[in-house]
Amino acid sequence: MVVNESMYQLGSVRSAIRELFEYGKKRAAIVGKENVYDFSIGNPSIPAPQIVNDTIKELVTDYDSVALHGYTSAQGDVETRAAIAEFLNNTHGTHFNADNLYMTMGAAASLSICFRALTSDAYDEFITIAPYFPEYKVFVNAAGARLVEVPADTEHFQIDFDALEERINAHTRGVIINSPNNPSGTVYSEETIKKLSDLLEKKSKEIGRPIFIIADEPYREIVYDGIKVPFVTKYYDNTLVCYSYSKSLSLPGERIGYVLVPDEVYDKAELYAAVCGAGRALGYVCAPSLFQKMIVKCQGATGDINAYKENRDLLYEGLTRIGYHCFKPDGAFYMFVKALEDDSNAFCEKAKEEDVLIVAADGFGCPGWVRISYCVDREMIKHSMPAFEKIYKKYNK
Amino acid sequence: MVVNESMYQLGSVRSAIRELFEYGKKRAAIVGKENVYDFSIGNPSIPAPQIVNDTIKELVTDYDSVALHGYTSAQGDVETRAAIAEFLNNTHGTHFNADNLYMTMGAAASLSICFRALTSDAYDEFITIAPYFPEYKVFVNAAGARLVEVPADTEHFQIDFDALEERINAHTRGVIINSPNNPSGTVYSEETIKKLSDLLEKKSKEIGRPIFIIADEPYREIVYDGIKVPFVTKYYDNTLVCYSYSKSLSLPGERIGYVLVPDEVYDKAELYAAVCGAGRALGYVCAPSLFQKMIVKCQGATGDINAYKENRDLLYEGLTRIGYHCFKPDGAFYMFVKALEDDSNAFCEKAKEEDVLIVAADGFGCPGWVRISYCVDREMIKHSMPAFEKIYKKYNK
Repeated sequence: MVVNESMYQLGSVRSAIRELFEYGKKRAAIVGKENVYDFSIGNPSIPAPQIVNDTIKELVTDYDSVALHGYTSAQGDVETRAAIAEFLNNTHGTHFNADNLYMTMGAAASLSICFRALTSDAYDEFITIAPYFPEYKVFVNAAGARLVEVPADTEHFQIDFDALEERINAHTRGVIINSPNNPSGTVYSEETIKKLSDLLEKKSKEIGRPIFIIADEPYREIVYDGIKVPFVTKYYDNTLVCYSYSKSLSLPGERIGYVLVPDEVYDKAELYAAVCGAGRALGYVCAPSLFQKMIVKCQGATGDINAYKENRDLLYEGLTRIGYHCFKPDGAFYMFVKALEDDSNAFCEKAKEEDVLIVAADGFGCPGWVRISYCVDREMIKHSMPAFEKIYKKYNK
Repeated sequence: MVVNESMYQLGSVRSAIRELFEYGKKRAAIVGKENVYDFSIGNPSIPAPQIVNDTIKELVTDYDSVALHGYTSAQGDVETRAAIAEFLNNTHGTHFNADNLYMTMGAAASLSICFRALTSDAYDEFITIAPYFPEYKVFVNAAGARLVEVPADTEHFQIDFDALEERINAHTRGVIINSPNNPSGTVYSEETIKKLSDLLEKKSKEIGRPIFIIADEPYREIVYDGIKVPFVTKYYDNTLVCYSYSKSLSLPGERIGYVLVPDEVYDKAELYAAVCGAGRALGYVCAPSLFQKMIVKCQGATGDINAYKENRDLLYEGLTRIGYHCFKPDGAFYMFVKALEDDSNAFCEKAKEEDVLIVAADGFGCPGWVRISYCVDREMIKHSMPAFEKIYKKYNK
């Protein structure tokens, strides 16, 4: 093979989710869009808050074009970083400033940069807690490290601490957490974050170097029923926060986010420099300038999160009534449902026969479960219920 | 060190250009902006063509927000890719379609992706022709390969083919060319491209695998006096074109460009897949969606290139009259000038004493020369002439 074989593999094997999504589009062309219940993909279904488009319009109208579209410094415009720091401080009672932030092209970039900055040799390991976003493996491997999986706590979808402790060793560089979680919709409780912090402090001492928490938080604002998402840097010093505006501002295609490097991390100056260096090595010159400037005005704005909550309630009540075992999500826009047979792929195939497109959770490290994305049209949820009932009856005659 | 040491180095050692640029800003605060002649940086000084901002305004006003800001497919919107293919075909008489294009976040991303897609082992080499853009080394090394330098042809700034041939071996994966060139402003002639193609065809046969041309072309449209830039895919099959709209549309901060993979390359399907895979591995999810959609309407638009030409003429005539030996640039917005002593860093220091900020070309692989960016305010060029004369007189009393 003339090209790099693993790059070829990565580029030619489409993700199962993407595959299903494409199938849904083809199927809709045959049986009609209204007869396909596509719960496959996590593309926000609510529009960006009005202030996003208004601000963009204002910027291209009034702002000096050369400055608006010009290079920003590699770590991002200082105004943008200062505005984010101020917003975080007001919201969480923290004490960040512009120098704690590095602007990126979204969460995938933030994560890739952190893994690259922290990986020193091929034995380095990052731990992920199932169920987890499968691209973590791609990003960790691309950085030259190994991804280690902790099996899911399928009762509460918090963390199985015994299983986690077993997997920590001298090669552990960090633990990735993702709360609110894709795909389970769980939010880690304060108790979980405290236990995690205690464990990692103990283990860091044991192995003689810091184990980092990499907090992947694109869903931070998407929570229901007034639930609080503990802000991890307040519990554990060696925390890097990877954030994206994709979900909160409903602009996943625009690629804007940040890495937060608190002063409290071990040798902050060194780590921040390594983050800058990793961004440079990955070919990220600067985060898109127009969106950086837009962000200044849109701190704290979100799309209509209540729309997701109503979708969740409708789906949860509907499926529970039929007889499905669902984990009630506290946040994000995914629901985790137990497959009606051990082989969740086979279950998803049976669902597909009724034009219900849902994703087997094997790829998320949690066999026996399925993920249902409810960032969809509400009417589709309503109309899908008879199909879900039909599927249920296949197993419960 | 807790972090990756080379990432730390990359992030903490600021580029000499950036350093000089920051010095210029500080110095301006002391002696006044009008008394500092900053020719250090390559940030386009002319605004984006009006159609860019008009189109963005239209899109955020009229386009469905969810679709506008949503994920595009990883390789980019098919409409965008089709529009680019059509424009290239109309301009160059080629036969591309959407499937020959992969949208990226600008030239740095395009290059990083190509190097990553083509690098299979640690002995792989990419060749660059001096003078060259220093970040090539960063991107090639990040892909796990080695950058090999061919010394400059300082007479015509074409290619020293004997020196190039000497450096090609069984490990050579590609030759990077950058025409119009940063930093020399040269445009490779058709004769040069033909000779290069012949040599690489011969050498590919010898080593038994294709040697690729990676054509880095962000300055393709920025040429003067009606000079033609040969379109490399028409001369050599195994060509990958890395393009960015940063310079042509004056939006370097927005990060939008593409990789062009012609049908004629060796095993196109495999190579295109590897490009997609490398994009995924580097954490590029998709190129910014709003800018992808803007690009559809802005094919062929450019900023006022004549402004750069007038700057070039003013600078070239002014410096030549004083007595400097200048290479007259055919394109881009840099002029290459021979330093007045062998040590070009020392020469730049002498220039700095007169508040003239120019960049020693050692970092571009071409010691003894300096780079002068003329994407600057025209008045500054005019006012800088007495200072350039003073510097000249230091060496010619």
